[in-house]
Amino acid sequence: MLDPADLDAADPLAFARGRFRIPDGLIYLDGNSLGVLPKSTPARLGVTSEQEWGDGLISSWNAAGWIDWPLSIAARLAPLVGASPDELLICDSTSINLFKLAMAACALRPDRKVILTEEANFPTDIYMLQSAAKLSGAELRAVPRSELSAALDQTVGLLSLTHVDYRSGERHDLVGLTGEAHRAGALTLWDLSHSAGVLAVDLARANADFAVGCGYKYLSGGPGAPAFLFVRRGLQQLCTNPLPGWFGHESPFDFDTGYRPATGIARFQTGTPPILGMAALDEGLKLFANVDTADVEAKTGRLGDLFIENVGDCLALASPRDAGRRGGHIVFAHDAAYSIVQASIERGVIGDFRAPNLARFGFAPLSLTYSEVAKAGAIVRDVVLSDYWREPRFAERKAVT
Amino acid sequence: MLDPADLDAADPLAFARGRFRIPDGLIYLDGNSLGVLPKSTPARLGVTSEQEWGDGLISSWNAAGWIDWPLSIAARLAPLVGASPDELLICDSTSINLFKLAMAACALRPDRKVILTEEANFPTDIYMLQSAAKLSGAELRAVPRSELSAALDQTVGLLSLTHVDYRSGERHDLVGLTGEAHRAGALTLWDLSHSAGVLAVDLARANADFAVGCGYKYLSGGPGAPAFLFVRRGLQQLCTNPLPGWFGHESPFDFDTGYRPATGIARFQTGTPPILGMAALDEGLKLFANVDTADVEAKTGRLGDLFIENVGDCLALASPRDAGRRGGHIVFAHDAAYSIVQASIERGVIGDFRAPNLARFGFAPLSLTYSEVAKAGAIVRDVVLSDYWREPRFAERKAVT
Repeated sequence: MLDPADLDAADPLAFARGRFRIPDGLIYLDGNSLGVLPKSTPARLGVTSEQEWGDGLISSWNAAGWIDWPLSIAARLAPLVGASPDELLICDSTSINLFKLAMAACALRPDRKVILTEEANFPTDIYMLQSAAKLSGAELRAVPRSELSAALDQTVGLLSLTHVDYRSGERHDLVGLTGEAHRAGALTLWDLSHSAGVLAVDLARANADFAVGCGYKYLSGGPGAPAFLFVRRGLQQLCTNPLPGWFGHESPFDFDTGYRPATGIARFQTGTPPILGMAALDEGLKLFANVDTADVEAKTGRLGDLFIENVGDCLALASPRDAGRRGGHIVFAHDAAYSIVQASIERGVIGDFRAPNLARFGFAPLSLTYSEVAKAGAIVRDVVLSDYWREPRFAERKAVT
Repeated sequence: MLDPADLDAADPLAFARGRFRIPDGLIYLDGNSLGVLPKSTPARLGVTSEQEWGDGLISSWNAAGWIDWPLSIAARLAPLVGASPDELLICDSTSINLFKLAMAACALRPDRKVILTEEANFPTDIYMLQSAAKLSGAELRAVPRSELSAALDQTVGLLSLTHVDYRSGERHDLVGLTGEAHRAGALTLWDLSHSAGVLAVDLARANADFAVGCGYKYLSGGPGAPAFLFVRRGLQQLCTNPLPGWFGHESPFDFDTGYRPATGIARFQTGTPPILGMAALDEGLKLFANVDTADVEAKTGRLGDLFIENVGDCLALASPRDAGRRGGHIVFAHDAAYSIVQASIERGVIGDFRAPNLARFGFAPLSLTYSEVAKAGAIVRDVVLSDYWREPRFAERKAVT
């Protein structure tokens, strides 16, 4: 077994831990659901609310650069996903961005009437793709993961998948599947919600067409943070935004009653940008400055391995054992997974439960140390082996976890 | 002329002024574009970021009630627009909400192929309605204001208007036009962006069907604040949300791959709510607690009248002189409107310019006193009559105003 103290001593990302505010005594393994708070964020919200909004008022659209934030904050994200800054935008929610890009993709392949996805995709992706398919005169076909390649036939205009499965943590081969889709004449739309900030995503190398992702998980943008979207440069001028709000207009402050899309990625904006949420996301993204995504992915994998080794054989791993096939989280299957998660929470290890029988633990590489992850694995092991989870209070279901 | 000191002394809304942070020496007449900062907002952002997010982490979805905010914060808005709390939702942007409801309305009137609006509607409304019409197999018909009634024929499924014109400040007869639309068999979708917080809007009395509006103007929710949407209770169960994200699902945390819309207004949610922005909007809305909208509308009208009287005949009013036909702002037409606005800003009176020739000034009734509005009118008058605006520096155009 790897020695966690040695790993911490050699960790090139160790500098980052102290930049997060983490409650005393907590080992937070739920950054895949809501990332921890950067220490700098409350002060940034103070600046944006008191100085920029309170004192600068309307002039801050120019003076504080608010008008440029959808692009300028996206530029900080670009190296994390292997995109150029002019291919990324911060806006809206993941769901809405997925809708925009699925509609845009369908319009580029009018003769192909199928959006292909997998059955186990995250529910909101399925719902939004269904609506986009219906409004595009197409249909959504959801197949098991193992049948995706075979289903990529001449009817498929768009393949839309979540890169890392929100339950199993299993990773799709983004480069390989993008290539397969292209050879079949289809476009690709990747949901990177569980990838950005934990894996060395390289959209350019994959020649990926479209992508979206979430700001509130590993990017530490805060609850309900604005999301992002990516459109390959070569496609941008061909695309129509189905939600063509004034901020995607070539010149919003001309108040032109005729819609003229902005050049490039900016055309995918819709309404007025949510400035407070964007300020917080900016602080989360700043922590990734000068971080090598290879280090990020390597640490994420090692943290997961270390946790698996410390939990040992008392729980059945339901994620790939090979870190190269996982994202940032892992799940264990157990009939009492709910109670095991609750009992672990009481002992200071925060994971979450996913129905019907999964205990999920995520490994945010900037905010976690190897030592605490090893300790957390041992705590969960003890919770299971000691039957501590059988205490009746751990069986009471809460509304949301 | 009314005596501003007397008006201030008798103002039932005078209590509110001290609750806003307003820069010294500034008379801010641009609350119609971005409302001023409530003093309580920075501290609230501190609580939501440090305690709820930082300390409570994922548990705050339940413990801090985040999950309920789209409805619970909407409840504070309900009395301002004459809605029941279960008819309102805080979510997304005005543009996106307009799209959702226009699509829902078209689906309720499948045999009618026209969305009717007016040519002078706010650009983003026109763009979003155009897209919704196209995706619904309908068309957008935009006519001059004077031709709206005549255009309400049997082809019109939806009449969508902005209650208060963003340039002229002219108010539509919301009750009358809703009735006319209903008699013609059409539904109505009102944009209340320039009405909520300044007028005694009464959606219930109008029997209005759908409405949307902005959180960052008179409601002081902050730059890019979440927006709101309204659906009349009787229509909710008949409506389909075209952007059916997981937060509009009956049970989001079941992670059901089949979409089942939530009962009631909640089905109009899409992605994860933007919690930081919602916290700020909540602080803005709290300032309206126990405020009588009749007092709000009366003060708004009197502030405008007082300003007009103090500006006098040196500028041509391009808004209705009768306060009962206006919203919260007024415009004056002048070939040098841009320079007049810039010169007034240098003298501490913040208004804005709207092309081609309008100087616009807004009168947020909670944050302004009669005395300062009278003074502002006198300053603008002096800027015009003294030819101060002719200084060359006031002619230089800025990117956004």
